[in-house]
Amino acid sequence: MTLIAWIDHAAVLVFALTGALVASRAQLDIIGFAFLAILTGVGGGTVRDVLLDRNPVFWMADPTYLGVAVIAAFVVFFTAHLFESRYKAILWLDAAALAFAVAAGANIAATLGQSAAIVVAMGTVTGCLGGLMRDVVANEVPLVLKQGELYVTCAVAGASVMAFAPMLGLSQTTTVLAAAAITFALRAGSIAFGWSLPVYKSRPPRN
Amino acid sequence: MTLIAWIDHAAVLVFALTGALVASRAQLDIIGFAFLAILTGVGGGTVRDVLLDRNPVFWMADPTYLGVAVIAAFVVFFTAHLFESRYKAILWLDAAALAFAVAAGANIAATLGQSAAIVVAMGTVTGCLGGLMRDVVANEVPLVLKQGELYVTCAVAGASVMAFAPMLGLSQTTTVLAAAAITFALRAGSIAFGWSLPVYKSRPPRN
Amino acid sequence: MTLIAWIDHAAVLVFALTGALVASRAQLDIIGFAFLAILTGVGGGTVRDVLLDRNPVFWMADPTYLGVAVIAAFVVFFTAHLFESRYKAILWLDAAALAFAVAAGANIAATLGQSAAIVVAMGTVTGCLGGLMRDVVANEVPLVLKQGELYVTCAVAGASVMAFAPMLGLSQTTTVLAAAAITFALRAGSIAFGWSLPVYKSRPPRN
Repeated sequence: MTLIAWIDHAAVLVFALTGALVASRAQLDIIGFAFLAILTGVGGGTVRDVLLDRNPVFWMADPTYLGVAVIAAFVVFFTAHLFESRYKAILWLDAAALAFAVAAGANIAATLGQSAAIVVAMGTVTGCLGGLMRDVVANEVPLVLKQGELYVTCAVAGASVMAFAPMLGLSQTTTVLAAAAITFALRAGSIAFGWSLPVYKSRPPRN
Repeated sequence: MTLIAWIDHAAVLVFALTGALVASRAQLDIIGFAFLAILTGVGGGTVRDVLLDRNPVFWMADPTYLGVAVIAAFVVFFTAHLFESRYKAILWLDAAALAFAVAAGANIAATLGQSAAIVVAMGTVTGCLGGLMRDVVANEVPLVLKQGELYVTCAVAGASVMAFAPMLGLSQTTTVLAAAAITFALRAGSIAFGWSLPVYKSRPPRN
Repeated sequence: MTLIAWIDHAAVLVFALTGALVASRAQLDIIGFAFLAILTGVGGGTVRDVLLDRNPVFWMADPTYLGVAVIAAFVVFFTAHLFESRYKAILWLDAAALAFAVAAGANIAATLGQSAAIVVAMGTVTGCLGGLMRDVVANEVPLVLKQGELYVTCAVAGASVMAFAPMLGLSQTTTVLAAAAITFALRAGSIAFGWSLPVYKSRPPRN
C-alpha cells in the first residue's frame, strides 16, 4: 500500500471513529454505531466521487473501506467509556481525519488534472461533508459552522497547498504530506490556542 | 407488472404516505405534502441509482413514480384526520416501506452483479435514506437513530438475505419476498415487542 | 453572455447572498460565509446536474460560479449591518433567487429534451434544494416548509410554464422570462399579501 492509499484509508478510519463517538453520545446500538461510522467515514469522499463522476465510487470499488469503518464502530462501542471527554476525543480525531481527507481528496482531483479551483473545492468537500452529514443527522451543531473556530478555513488552506505545490516542483508524496500537515496545524491551533478569523459581529436580529 | 416492479412501486407509495403524514404533522399545504411525499418516496432509491451510476435515475426513466407519490400526498391530505395516532401510522407504514425498499434496492444491486457487501449497502441505502431525508428536513428525530429500536439492523438483515440467498439456489422472486419479510418482521418486532440490541450505556458527557 | 447565461449566474449570485446573510445571523467568519454562500448558490443546480448526469457539473465546467458566490460572501460580510432586517432581506433575495433558479433549471432540462414531468421536477429541484441545504445546515426552519406560505408551489408553477410553453410556440427567451416572472410574482404575493393555499388543519398529535 502506498503512502497515499494509506492516508486515504486513515481518513475513512478516523472519521468513522468520530461518527461512532457521536453514536455513543446518542446511545445507539452497534448497528447504529456502524451506520454513523460509515456515513461519516465515506460521506465526503462519496460526494467528491459523484461530482468528479468517478465510477465506481471509491468504497464500491474497494469495500474494505466499509470494513474499516465497521471495525472503527466496534472498537468505539467497547472502548468509548475509556475516554475522559468524548467531546474532546471527537474534536481531535475529527481534526486528524480532516487533515487526511483534505489531502487525499485534493490529491485525487489533482491526479485527474483538474484546475486549481476544483482541486481546492474537492479537498474541502472531502474534508468537510462527512462530518457535516454526521452532525446534521445526529442533530449536533455542525463543527463546520462552529463560531469563532477555524474549520473550513483549514480545509481550504490545506487543499490550496495541493493546488499550488506543483508550481514549486514538489513531489506528490511531499505535497500530500504538506497539505495534511497544514490542515492539521491550523485546526489544532484553533482547538488548542483559539486561533480564529474575525467573525461577523453586528448583533443578529432574529425577527 | 412483475412482482418485483410491484414491490418497487409499493416502496415509493408507502414511503410517500409517511412523508405526507409528516407533512400533516407540520400542517403544510397540499404542495408541501407532495414535496415531502416525493422526497421520502424516491430519496433512498435516488441515492442508490446515483451511487450505482444508473442512468437515468429510476423516477426519471419512469415518472409514474412521481405520480404515485403525488397521489399518496392527496390521499393523506384528505384522510389524515381519520388516523387515531398519526405517529403510529407513520411508524407502521414506515416499517412496511422499509421492507419493500430494502428488498427492491438490494435486488437491483444483485441484478447488476454487485458483490455481497454492495448488495447489503444498496439495500440499506434504499431503505434508510428516504426516511432519513424526511426526518432531517422536517426536523424530527430520525427514526434511523431512535435509541433502543431496531431500524438499520432490519435493513442490513433483510439486504443480507438478498446477498446470500443465491448460495441457497432460491429464485429471485422468493429471495425478494424473503428479504422483505425478514426486514418487516424484525422492525415489527421492535415496534410491537420492543426487540432491540444492547445500546451503548455509559452516561454521555455533553460538555 | 446570453440572457439565459445571465439568469443562470444571477440565480447563483442571489442564492449566495442569502447563504451569506444566514452566515451573518450565525456570526461566522469570512470563510464560513463563503462556505454557506457556495452551498446555497450551487447546491440546487448541483443536484440537478447529478440527476441529469450532466458532466461536468456546471460549476466544475465553469468555476467562475464559485467566484461569484465568494464575491457575494465578501459583499455581505462587510455590508450586512446596513440591512434594517436581515431576515426580510433573506426572504426577498431568496424569492428572486428562486425565480431565477427555477427558470434556469427547468430550461436546462427542457433543452435536453426531457419530458414535462422532468422539466417541472428539475426546475423545482434547482430552485428549492440550495435553500433547503442552507436552512438544514444552519439549523433554521426550512423556508420550503414554512407553514401558510407558498414556496414549492411557486417553483412548480414557474417550472410548469417552462414545461408547457413550447405548446404555445413561445421563444425560449420569452418562456424563461415568463417562468421567472410567475415564480417571483407568486412568491412575492405570498410574502407581501399572505397568499397561500389551505393548509392541513386537524391538530397534530405529537405523541
